[in-house]
Amino acid sequence: MSIGKEVEALILDLGEFSEEPEALTRPAYSKAYERAAEYLVDQFKGAGLCVSCDYAGNIFGRLEGTDPQLAPIVIGSHLDTVRDAGKYDGIAGICCGLHALLHLNKSGKKLKHPVELAAFIGEEGTRFGQVLLGSRYTCGELTPQQMSAFHDERGIYFPEIISHYQNGNLPLHGMLCDDKPACFIELHDEQGPILENSNVQVGLVESIVGIFRLNVEVSGESGHCGTVPMSLRHDAGIAAFDFLVSAVDFAAARYGDKVTLTAGQLTLLPGSINSIPGQCSFTIDLRSAEIEKLVDIKAKLLDLADSVSKRRKVIISVTESMEKPPVKMDGTLNSLLERCSESLGLSAVRLNSGAGHDAMVMAGITDAAMIFLPCFKGISHNPLEYISADALENGVLLLAETIVHFDNME
Amino acid sequence: MSIGKEVEALILDLGEFSEEPEALTRPAYSKAYERAAEYLVDQFKGAGLCVSCDYAGNIFGRLEGTDPQLAPIVIGSHLDTVRDAGKYDGIAGICCGLHALLHLNKSGKKLKHPVELAAFIGEEGTRFGQVLLGSRYTCGELTPQQMSAFHDERGIYFPEIISHYQNGNLPLHGMLCDDKPACFIELHDEQGPILENSNVQVGLVESIVGIFRLNVEVSGESGHCGTVPMSLRHDAGIAAFDFLVSAVDFAAARYGDKVTLTAGQLTLLPGSINSIPGQCSFTIDLRSAEIEKLVDIKAKLLDLADSVSKRRKVIISVTESMEKPPVKMDGTLNSLLERCSESLGLSAVRLNSGAGHDAMVMAGITDAAMIFLPCFKGISHNPLEYISADALENGVLLLAETIVHFDNME
Repeated sequence: MSIGKEVEALILDLGEFSEEPEALTRPAYSKAYERAAEYLVDQFKGAGLCVSCDYAGNIFGRLEGTDPQLAPIVIGSHLDTVRDAGKYDGIAGICCGLHALLHLNKSGKKLKHPVELAAFIGEEGTRFGQVLLGSRYTCGELTPQQMSAFHDERGIYFPEIISHYQNGNLPLHGMLCDDKPACFIELHDEQGPILENSNVQVGLVESIVGIFRLNVEVSGESGHCGTVPMSLRHDAGIAAFDFLVSAVDFAAARYGDKVTLTAGQLTLLPGSINSIPGQCSFTIDLRSAEIEKLVDIKAKLLDLADSVSKRRKVIISVTESMEKPPVKMDGTLNSLLERCSESLGLSAVRLNSGAGHDAMVMAGITDAAMIFLPCFKGISHNPLEYISADALENGVLLLAETIVHFDNME
Repeated sequence: MSIGKEVEALILDLGEFSEEPEALTRPAYSKAYERAAEYLVDQFKGAGLCVSCDYAGNIFGRLEGTDPQLAPIVIGSHLDTVRDAGKYDGIAGICCGLHALLHLNKSGKKLKHPVELAAFIGEEGTRFGQVLLGSRYTCGELTPQQMSAFHDERGIYFPEIISHYQNGNLPLHGMLCDDKPACFIELHDEQGPILENSNVQVGLVESIVGIFRLNVEVSGESGHCGTVPMSLRHDAGIAAFDFLVSAVDFAAARYGDKVTLTAGQLTLLPGSINSIPGQCSFTIDLRSAEIEKLVDIKAKLLDLADSVSKRRKVIISVTESMEKPPVKMDGTLNSLLERCSESLGLSAVRLNSGAGHDAMVMAGITDAAMIFLPCFKGISHNPLEYISADALENGVLLLAETIVHFDNME
């Protein structure tokens, strides 16, 4: 069986561990998660890795190197899923990582650095509304005290949940921030359409985008749809639509694909077929790898709110609900990944990640990089998510090649 | 006390009959409606009217004329309300009608025609989702057999409801369509801002507008708000917004205030802050007194759907859910109303009604007209609805004057 097919088989096996019979739903610390982790630990052990687990439930499989002085090269991704998930998001990074180590083993290569394969827990935020939970813990961004305030939808607090979570009596792994890794490389599906559309085999992430979020409230005047003439209206819906169309067209013209602007939620009030909307509230999610562009478009949107409110005779108020700056991946690691892709004959392109990943947390404690694999139509967080076996094999080979070259560089 | 103040007092009294302590909610056949009807019947009797009630629950107060051969002049409006209603909608027409008859009585005028003051039931459609229920029954548009299929939200059918409805053992009134009235005049608040804005005392309705309703479904492609670049999106929300802004601006530019276009309901799917909307559905309510304009704009909207779907790379499907033609009020009655306004020194303007009224049903069996009174800011279907006592007095005097002149004309 090809490497790609073997990775695919492992991913499909892990996709069976779910809270629901008809869909893949595997929140952190669920029974399904526990069983998936056990299965994964067996696979890690079978590959000769020394397995341990930390307080948060992150699993680490370690391959010792020849130089005990060297810090570990860390690879991996997350094992938890959203509700009704695809099988590849996160899992592909762990499974390709495992097969990269098996591949290195088979080739008889001895590495100076130890390599740690991480299966992070709670990246998706499905259970506590807290994303990147495992990586934030191990990188020192979340203390156990902070975590003890987290609770799930049923009101069960983290300490109770973790006390019932079985980690198979594994030895305790320390925090990665206490033992700074040599580097971190995360493999993940792109979750977007760029690689597939441009027919490129791997994507190398330059930045994980920053996110600005705005809540916009438009106040007009409600009224009967038949009795208020068009010239006397203060239609909050039409004003909001005008604002959003202008905003999207402006963003596309000014920044091209360097900024995304999304209005995913919108509510009209009173919301009846025969009433002029008197209120309209909506969200705007802005993302860019360049903080200046986020600052720039936010200012432009405030100007736009001003001009639309005059044009449409309404009041528009804009409030910020999130301002996260972009996180840069390491340039040297990206150059190495590029050279290794070339030597393997893989086409590669630099791009930005529009979604958050454990790598953005790991970048806080070491040089971090990400390998993106193309996925079917860019679909993710959906049962239709798919990475071909060929693409998975490319990922395994690129990870292995990069580990070897990094090992020799230092 | 002035006539206006007396009418106001009666309206405020009737506003006390409600299903809810803090709001005016009086659906047809409710206990509150029954009590309001009893109170009204007492008022009718006190004014010397001969009161009767029909199968549907419409109440009629009859003032006999001197010529028993003549068909009745019918005036009036409806007694039921929407939920959390204003006190004037419908009720003002009944109360001004009663005081017009009291005024005629006081002045000692003997009319040749009988006059019937109607309090129609179930105009608002609050209980069965069937508007204009009482007038449609008495005009022969709804048979008892059709009505027996109506049921309320709790699944209680019309025959059971009507069997419990107490109409105070009144004599049974026949159907108006069996005894064609000489004419029908309905007084109502404008429910819009035109009269107040132009500082005119009465509005004379030329047409009750026709209504075309469209359901529009935009299909794009959902995706992660960070991972799909702007140039590769098929954002159903932005396409819908573009369509609606273009549609409203087109309608305003082409038809001015002769057409209204309202999008009162809109839903984005999946509707999450970090997802590109893949689906957007919304309603369009189109109204005009001119059927050609409705036909014209509907065709233009279909063209627009075509161009926006190309421009925004989505599929837009438009389906019709209602096509009601406009109903003309009687020209001769309007000229008479205009002359009577003038003789009373009242400023009057011709306008169209953007909302439906019992007069549009009555127009099917006789010459019908409507008097609109200005209301505060055009607000209706809202506790803030208000007609000044002066305006109510204008309504009473114009109704009385018009009845006298109509009586003499024939």
